[in-house]
Amino acid sequence: MTHPPGSPPTSSPITGEAAIIDILAPLTARFPGAFALKDDCAALVPTPGYDLVLKTDAVAEGVHFFADDAASDIGWKALAVNVSDLVAKGARPRVYLMALAFPAPPSLHWLRDFARGLEQAQTCFGITLAGGDTDRRHGPLSITIAAIGEVPAGRMVRRAAAEAGDLLYVSGTLGDAALGLKLRSDGSQAAQWELAPDDALALVRRYLRPEPRLALAPVLRDHARAAMDLSDGLVKDLGRMMQASGTAAVVHAAKVPLSKPAAAAQARTPALLIDVLTGGDDYEVLAAVAPDRAKSFEQAAAAAGIAVARIGETTPRRPEAGRVVVQDHDGRQLDLVRSGWDHF
Amino acid sequence: MTHPPGSPPTSSPITGEAAIIDILAPLTARFPGAFALKDDCAALVPTPGYDLVLKTDAVAEGVHFFADDAASDIGWKALAVNVSDLVAKGARPRVYLMALAFPAPPSLHWLRDFARGLEQAQTCFGITLAGGDTDRRHGPLSITIAAIGEVPAGRMVRRAAAEAGDLLYVSGTLGDAALGLKLRSDGSQAAQWELAPDDALALVRRYLRPEPRLALAPVLRDHARAAMDLSDGLVKDLGRMMQASGTAAVVHAAKVPLSKPAAAAQARTPALLIDVLTGGDDYEVLAAVAPDRAKSFEQAAAAAGIAVARIGETTPRRPEAGRVVVQDHDGRQLDLVRSGWDHF
Repeated sequence: MTHPPGSPPTSSPITGEAAIIDILAPLTARFPGAFALKDDCAALVPTPGYDLVLKTDAVAEGVHFFADDAASDIGWKALAVNVSDLVAKGARPRVYLMALAFPAPPSLHWLRDFARGLEQAQTCFGITLAGGDTDRRHGPLSITIAAIGEVPAGRMVRRAAAEAGDLLYVSGTLGDAALGLKLRSDGSQAAQWELAPDDALALVRRYLRPEPRLALAPVLRDHARAAMDLSDGLVKDLGRMMQASGTAAVVHAAKVPLSKPAAAAQARTPALLIDVLTGGDDYEVLAAVAPDRAKSFEQAAAAAGIAVARIGETTPRRPEAGRVVVQDHDGRQLDLVRSGWDHF
Repeated sequence: MTHPPGSPPTSSPITGEAAIIDILAPLTARFPGAFALKDDCAALVPTPGYDLVLKTDAVAEGVHFFADDAASDIGWKALAVNVSDLVAKGARPRVYLMALAFPAPPSLHWLRDFARGLEQAQTCFGITLAGGDTDRRHGPLSITIAAIGEVPAGRMVRRAAAEAGDLLYVSGTLGDAALGLKLRSDGSQAAQWELAPDDALALVRRYLRPEPRLALAPVLRDHARAAMDLSDGLVKDLGRMMQASGTAAVVHAAKVPLSKPAAAAQARTPALLIDVLTGGDDYEVLAAVAPDRAKSFEQAAAAAGIAVARIGETTPRRPEAGRVVVQDHDGRQLDLVRSGWDHF
């Protein structure tokens, strides 16, 4: 590769690490502890009475995004996938560190667009760049972020805390990003699914620009027993929550919330249900709520302006912890060929 | 690449992300907030009255280590280069996040050895794994760590705080790793430099296993005006400190501390002085100390068991901030062809 993904070949490449730092330093403007990226480390003053919630997640070209995605979308996504985890734990995002690996010096144009996407995400998520590292190496462009949020002491919402009999909720709609990824890979499918151009675009946009459900964080802290974000597909991630909690789950496929475009596509191509249930990149919240908290959870979510849908319930570990059964309208078990994404 | 660096091809590859987590989870044993890597995030309870010091640094095969380095050495180095930064800021290491990118599933053998190196480093540095992320992608094996330490509130030692007239100190000895890297790349140079095998090994080991100067952290907090770790070569990193501080510096080449093997090599091949002054991977501390604190700094370092050597002094910004002049024994300015490592 002679120029980085998305950069017009006419735009001149960056010279020197200092030039990269100059473009990224404005992202630290609201955080004095970043010392404008002119020190070796950042200093964070913790809020008294709060725990810090820590997460690292990487995105790489060819795995999590396409080489020709807009740089601003890549920046947004790199940050969003980390913030999504913090939010699902009930945390408020604070700062992040970012390690960039470039196969070739990026162009000024590309890097400015990348920084613009990060800036937009920072503003939406209330998080600020604190520091970073930049390397050049062969291989794909990759962005590794470590994000730090905070929760009132002892209040991080756990993955392992679901109990048999809890009600299972998800935020927003599922499967949009999985369908968007299919369209991003092969645009001709839009016609196959008889999607209007705007609907196809909306699905692709959900793949490119995940939107962490920030307003749900305090609701989860107050009303959920367990929660996590959905990144590797509902069935796989729910299985992880059940495994960790020592429970099993039943999901009612008809109750899984679909966006209008996803519902339209699935009406034309019923097999897309598999993608909805097992496709990755949802970045919605999965929560287990005790039955006696269900009403208050639903009310608080509504007050926060976040749609939540009850999709199933947890059961005792039958026949084993982590088992997820998806039922159709008539209570028959769906046979899912695959459960979700695994890198290995 | 069909098997990861350093792994014997006979050792079977890991299957599934869960198997990787199983091998790494014991590294979290001393940190309950890691939830044994079975949650999506970690929870860190900050120590009241302390600030957190944040750093991220990545190491990649072919850039920071060799594909056939021992996995335990790779693990050690990935953690050491981050801890080195924390220590130079006066911080005590606490926890770290680790994002792994594998070009192919690692073997059990390789991953266990990698974890062993991390375990050794954790024990030496007093830091614990808090969480992580594992991806598979083409390109080099890479390890991106985000390390968190703590300092008493407001006491992080800055890079930008040197003043004209300060005395410049470095810890330990410089250039060992740069010479070790030359030997690691081409073993025949040991004969050229007339090095005893043990001496050659000692230099290579300094490249493979940097040793952050943990005991120096409180000394820096109490006595140094500015400090940073040396990772990209003395001349370049000192230039960065001077640039940030708005000062310049004079270094007396004869006062730069050399190990016995490095001194022996340089006696045979005087041009190696350039490598000592500009080679990377020292992971020693550079400190600017006010003249009236010099004696107490030296005494406290001695009491902590860390050798420090005074190598020069800061001057007003002449002709410009960031200028570093290296003088030989007779006060003549050395002409350095290059100043240090830059990825871009």
